[in-house]
Amino acid sequence: VTELLGVLGGMGPLATAHFYRTLIELTWAENDQAHLPVVLWADPRVPDRTAALLGVGPSPVPALVMGVRWLQRAGAATIAVPCNTAHAFLPEVRRLTGASFLDMPTAALRSALAQVPGAARVGVLATRGTRLAAIYERAGEPLGLDICQVSEGSQRRLLDPAIAEIKAGGDRARARQLIADAAQELSELGAAAVVAGCSEIPLVAQPAGEIIPVIDATASLAELALLRMLAGSAANRPLA
Amino acid sequence: VTELLGVLGGMGPLATAHFYRTLIELTWAENDQAHLPVVLWADPRVPDRTAALLGVGPSPVPALVMGVRWLQRAGAATIAVPCNTAHAFLPEVRRLTGASFLDMPTAALRSALAQVPGAARVGVLATRGTRLAAIYERAGEPLGLDICQVSEGSQRRLLDPAIAEIKAGGDRARARQLIADAAQELSELGAAAVVAGCSEIPLVAQPAGEIIPVIDATASLAELALLRMLAGSAANRPLA
Repeated sequence: VTELLGVLGGMGPLATAHFYRTLIELTWAENDQAHLPVVLWADPRVPDRTAALLGVGPSPVPALVMGVRWLQRAGAATIAVPCNTAHAFLPEVRRLTGASFLDMPTAALRSALAQVPGAARVGVLATRGTRLAAIYERAGEPLGLDICQVSEGSQRRLLDPAIAEIKAGGDRARARQLIADAAQELSELGAAAVVAGCSEIPLVAQPAGEIIPVIDATASLAELALLRMLAGSAANRPLA
Repeated sequence: VTELLGVLGGMGPLATAHFYRTLIELTWAENDQAHLPVVLWADPRVPDRTAALLGVGPSPVPALVMGVRWLQRAGAATIAVPCNTAHAFLPEVRRLTGASFLDMPTAALRSALAQVPGAARVGVLATRGTRLAAIYERAGEPLGLDICQVSEGSQRRLLDPAIAEIKAGGDRARARQLIADAAQELSELGAAAVVAGCSEIPLVAQPAGEIIPVIDATASLAELALLRMLAGSAANRPLA
């Protein structure tokens, strides 16, 4: 019998829905019963991760620990967190709970290497908090990958408003254009691929994908979750 | 502070993802923190509901009770079950756990009445189990609604294969056509609207919607959940 997958979500809720749906679509199942059992804690009241990293908001750690403890009580030994910025706090949450988290940034960079073999530089579209915590830079180092980001001005002018627009359920067409402009900038900096490294971005990554290969970090996490959960189970196998 | 919504899902997983996404999209939220906190138990290994109702499979009640107890321990007082057929077992689960469930069939029939005021007869596209348990017929009575279903032959030829196709991640175009044919039959029986009363059907209800108004029971459940959870909370309001 397959183990239970824990999902610490709600950051934001749409990104969590995208993760769960991708997980189901990647699963090779002929009926309900062959799908992964999932428990999800999605409390969107977790304090804003970027605000905490910038030192202008409370820490999300207590809320994350509460969610993890609840997932552990349900029997989930492996936990996926479909929020890139939250990964800055996971070492602390791991220390406090002993939980085992799937590594989303590494999964995304591995997908980039699979899609563009030999890539030396990968761009990342992310929140200000993910940048500040150098989440992708740290994940890139052991893989020999150089990570590039848009300029401070483009972060303010393109990425921050695009992410806020999606979280607010706002103008998707505008968000799509902002993300495409940011992807263009990373392409000009020599990136071989771009990671949509904030879980809201894959939802509007379409025109950007015509400029440069765009890796959906949320889908990479879903793929990793599936592979990890099915390791040892012959009942199911991943699609790709 | 808004109460926690419990979701007993995984029946099937795609329908659960559709419910969760609809809930988020109906919410009028400007940032993550304004969304509903949700806990989800999605164990797709819950025995097949229709097989149990037909007497050819084990009861899903023990698995449902396990999920409900876990949601209750997490603090969820109100529970949504995005699976029509599972509603046949909820009275028993309520007796065993004391849980309070949102009533999906009633929510769907109320949506039908809102969309077609004065409707006297509503058709239901459902699994064999939902039919056998007369879930919609019971919900229609207090609303003064007459419920009609496709013939036994059409259930076998159109609905059963369409539902199985979606659960297996199969040919959506074929499923769409089968559902449209079934909706046509209900329209000819005098139905003023049709409830997509198996949570897989809204995923392929498009051409049917050109023949007759189609109510997505999963969306009705999401709307009811939102209204119920926000009652008394000024922080948020539903879209419609």
